[in-house]
Amino acid sequence: MPIYTPPLRDMQFVLHEVFKVTDEFKAMPAHAEVDADTINAVLEEAGKFAAGVAFPLNISGDTEGCKLDTATHEVTPPKGFKEAYRQYVEGGWPALSCDPEFGGQGLPHTVNQCLYEMLNSANQAWTMYPGLSHGAYEALVAHGTDEQKKTYLPKLVSGEWTGTMCLTEPHCGTDLGMLRTKAEPQGDGTYKITGNKIFISAGEHDFTENIVHLVLARLPDAPKGSKGISLFVVPKFHVKADGSLGERNPIFCTGLEHKMGIHGNATAQIAIDGATGTLVGEPHKGLAAMFVMMNAARLGVGNQSLGLTEVAFQNALAYAKDRIQMRSLSGKKAPDKEADPIIVHPDVRKMLLTAKAYAEGARALQVFCTLLLDKAHGHPDEKVRKDSDELVALLTPIVKAFVTDNGHVATNACMQVFGGHGFIKEWGMEQFVRDNRINMIYEGTNTIQSLDLLGRKVLGNNGATLKKFGKLVGQLVQEEGVNEKMAEFINPIAYLGDQMTKFTTEIGFRGFQNPDEVGAAAVDYLRVAGHLVFGYLFARMAQVALREIAAGNTDPFYVAKLQTARFYFAKLFPETATLMRTARAGSKVLMDTDAALA
Amino acid sequence: MPIYTPPLRDMQFVLHEVFKVTDEFKAMPAHAEVDADTINAVLEEAGKFAAGVAFPLNISGDTEGCKLDTATHEVTPPKGFKEAYRQYVEGGWPALSCDPEFGGQGLPHTVNQCLYEMLNSANQAWTMYPGLSHGAYEALVAHGTDEQKKTYLPKLVSGEWTGTMCLTEPHCGTDLGMLRTKAEPQGDGTYKITGNKIFISAGEHDFTENIVHLVLARLPDAPKGSKGISLFVVPKFHVKADGSLGERNPIFCTGLEHKMGIHGNATAQIAIDGATGTLVGEPHKGLAAMFVMMNAARLGVGNQSLGLTEVAFQNALAYAKDRIQMRSLSGKKAPDKEADPIIVHPDVRKMLLTAKAYAEGARALQVFCTLLLDKAHGHPDEKVRKDSDELVALLTPIVKAFVTDNGHVATNACMQVFGGHGFIKEWGMEQFVRDNRINMIYEGTNTIQSLDLLGRKVLGNNGATLKKFGKLVGQLVQEEGVNEKMAEFINPIAYLGDQMTKFTTEIGFRGFQNPDEVGAAAVDYLRVAGHLVFGYLFARMAQVALREIAAGNTDPFYVAKLQTARFYFAKLFPETATLMRTARAGSKVLMDTDAALA
Repeated sequence: MPIYTPPLRDMQFVLHEVFKVTDEFKAMPAHAEVDADTINAVLEEAGKFAAGVAFPLNISGDTEGCKLDTATHEVTPPKGFKEAYRQYVEGGWPALSCDPEFGGQGLPHTVNQCLYEMLNSANQAWTMYPGLSHGAYEALVAHGTDEQKKTYLPKLVSGEWTGTMCLTEPHCGTDLGMLRTKAEPQGDGTYKITGNKIFISAGEHDFTENIVHLVLARLPDAPKGSKGISLFVVPKFHVKADGSLGERNPIFCTGLEHKMGIHGNATAQIAIDGATGTLVGEPHKGLAAMFVMMNAARLGVGNQSLGLTEVAFQNALAYAKDRIQMRSLSGKKAPDKEADPIIVHPDVRKMLLTAKAYAEGARALQVFCTLLLDKAHGHPDEKVRKDSDELVALLTPIVKAFVTDNGHVATNACMQVFGGHGFIKEWGMEQFVRDNRINMIYEGTNTIQSLDLLGRKVLGNNGATLKKFGKLVGQLVQEEGVNEKMAEFINPIAYLGDQMTKFTTEIGFRGFQNPDEVGAAAVDYLRVAGHLVFGYLFARMAQVALREIAAGNTDPFYVAKLQTARFYFAKLFPETATLMRTARAGSKVLMDTDAALA
Repeated sequence: MPIYTPPLRDMQFVLHEVFKVTDEFKAMPAHAEVDADTINAVLEEAGKFAAGVAFPLNISGDTEGCKLDTATHEVTPPKGFKEAYRQYVEGGWPALSCDPEFGGQGLPHTVNQCLYEMLNSANQAWTMYPGLSHGAYEALVAHGTDEQKKTYLPKLVSGEWTGTMCLTEPHCGTDLGMLRTKAEPQGDGTYKITGNKIFISAGEHDFTENIVHLVLARLPDAPKGSKGISLFVVPKFHVKADGSLGERNPIFCTGLEHKMGIHGNATAQIAIDGATGTLVGEPHKGLAAMFVMMNAARLGVGNQSLGLTEVAFQNALAYAKDRIQMRSLSGKKAPDKEADPIIVHPDVRKMLLTAKAYAEGARALQVFCTLLLDKAHGHPDEKVRKDSDELVALLTPIVKAFVTDNGHVATNACMQVFGGHGFIKEWGMEQFVRDNRINMIYEGTNTIQSLDLLGRKVLGNNGATLKKFGKLVGQLVQEEGVNEKMAEFINPIAYLGDQMTKFTTEIGFRGFQNPDEVGAAAVDYLRVAGHLVFGYLFARMAQVALREIAAGNTDPFYVAKLQTARFYFAKLFPETATLMRTARAGSKVLMDTDAALA
């Protein structure tokens, strides 16, 4: 059976030693009182829930899946899921980073980030139920009417109800401009909504009495395309003025998808058969309102892969120490045993360290981003808010695509460490691979993320935001440029930063003449950017580790951090050598292929 | 529902235009009469069986899986599998490349290779039943006694019985030296065999009346380790002198594995409870005898991934032409439609072309290797036989690891083309990914392949065999070095060949001082070697295409081939830039990591 230990030490290192989050929180009125002890205590409890309650249901949830009663349209998730949700609510976890105005505990996003990393390690399929709910909460906070906020937010915050995002239709996923679900005004401020949705995660279940669906639909006078989409809240049960539940709204689960992974989550086909809803935000501005959820969701998807990378690593490491097979090439390492543990083999170490480096890089990146979110929401200085918002917007597609692609590499590497046993369900490794696979697809495929990064976030403002990130890299280079011990970490990022700047200008020119040049380079460009960001973060982590060691700290944690950083720069970061080359190869070899793709 | 069209045109191109196989066959007495029309007719019929009989059972076989009756130890594979096997036997397919002495049709391995590519595209799980059987046939032809040959071979050739390979035990897979199954001589020339085996593919089923298990076990006087292993044939039912079946031999299926993929194949746990067997080959020389099967099986595993890459490509291509979503970045391409087909997007093309290039490169490599096998077995000139044997030995780990890793990349890319629908079972794409995943593991993990290549096949004879392959590259470079049109295909392989030669010498020196240097470089080295081989083959294919076009041939097939080759050199081959760098990074960053991997 798989194991999972919450990585509290590394979280504390990232939070307190690298980013010194409580110093940052002091500047934010809402979080000025949050101290390190509180954060650590919360995360310890969160870890207990993740490891003790959600994790034991991971394999059984995968095996059992969800069941739909086609007569009642009710869905039963796997055994134990409902009870785990009850305990989650009882622990107050849904409220952790919510606004106290609606019953929330008001802790920073940064803390919620770490809670969710652990939940994702423990059970991605289960975690998506509260996760989607939190997305609905954020959209309603940002765009709901006072009435909607009063009706829905306290229940979403307490976890009494859950929420969903109903976007995709059978003929449109990426291209929401094509969506057909209709909303007709009823003259009383409500709308009658009709259409068919698919791929609705956590779309139906028996955890709660009510489910708050956020639905994209078109008003009768809507312009064509993506500028004619509005957002509606459509509850499963109507809510009476006193807050009690009224009649069933005709928004029904009509089918569940059979999927490669995340079997424990109900991925629902939803028929909306004249259901009554109310408008969220302005007419025809639904996509913008939905993007509040989408951006949070994209960071959340990266976090799912971080969770899976971490748990896959832990299991592969334990197996590699335990499993004996063959002898080390450089002489017996366990002469008392029939063979050496497989961790003596260089390539086994490479697979393990790949996962470890990708987990630790992603953890630093996720905390970096959510700290920026906290600043964007709660910093008193407008410039800090704006800068933080822009930087997190730049990093969001990198988090979503780079971390999930890395998760694919890492979970597959960890599965490979198990040899044939990795292919067997009972060991749990192949499930991490299958569950991770959706992360590269949903909330905008990784190709879409790359176009968002290069086309919109970088070239869209002539590289202005990218330069802001470049400044951070430049500062570190300047700060540590004369420190010989830091050279191995600083030189590669200084070189790559330079290369990227040149290439960004080049691709800007090329794209101006032929936009397909942007599309041809974008995926490679995003991975290069990802390595620049990871390189920067590993350099910062190495900086802290070197300082601690220089100051006489003998905690082997710091030695381990340096070893992982060295591995990262030696074996993973050099991928950029190829990526720069293939990004430069241009669009012609892709587009002049009509005969090959006939 | 997925589609599959046998790629007969490309097979014919590789067989007849690139390798001119019938010219080669003319030199071999056993195959001198085999002409192109015969080969093409056989492959057309084979394609009909694959597409029409095996392929429709692929998704249902995955969904249904195999069932074990624990009382009788009998296994029922998915519905339709037995009937498909009956048709396969009726068509005479098991006998295709078998020796006429035992009832075979005596066609070259090269033809059998193409049959199996198509079967693997159609249904890898089903194909493993006849595939394992063919492996048992080859081991008995090479090492069986006359009595064993007489008893078993005609039945394996006709397909009346099937065979298995029983190697792995719970505590040993890679390290067969640790195996514990015992064989006690009974004084009558038979042995009593006792032990437990796992991961036995096609280990039990209801297709045939008898199953011929080849079992590795230790004799009482066996030396420790891998030099004390003997091979035995242990039939499910004893065979009487008249060829009829006698009593049940106590070799039982006691469990079936729950796996990530190839659900239609019965992966059996086998308890051998004092079963009677006879020795194959010499005592304690079982591993060598088994390697006859293993080497064939390793080429066969590459072929499985070739099959999956091809079928995944065909489906992704059809979907990319059909699915409309978003507009081309460079202006509407289907103005009459609500959106453009997604094939207009550069990165969708990149994913499709990745699969196409990996399929076509693998097809050329597999035919190249099986033609070498035919020469090694049947060429009258001893030097040709020896050279061919050595070259195929060098290429075997490359086929096994490079082609299966490429299959992983390709099937995942094709699944990604489908967006969210790729994650849904009914589309069939995620099954290709899951089925392919085992190919990177079994018959020796891809790490083991890399050690076999670099440690044994390259450094083991001071690069002598590698030089033979280098000569082929050198010949092509010399032949086409002045042809400007070939420069784009020739220059990269000339450069890489040079780099590899230098690096091989370098790693030889380093490995001499520290063997872990070999282990640290091996996986990257194998992928570089794989690209050198693919580059060579794409250059040869481009050479043929350019000649045909120059001669006025207007078949768009040749244009397509050039486009695919150009894509390969521009977007896939440059991976070697990174691989050379990471291979050179050495073992220290992997081995000095005890703190990180504590």
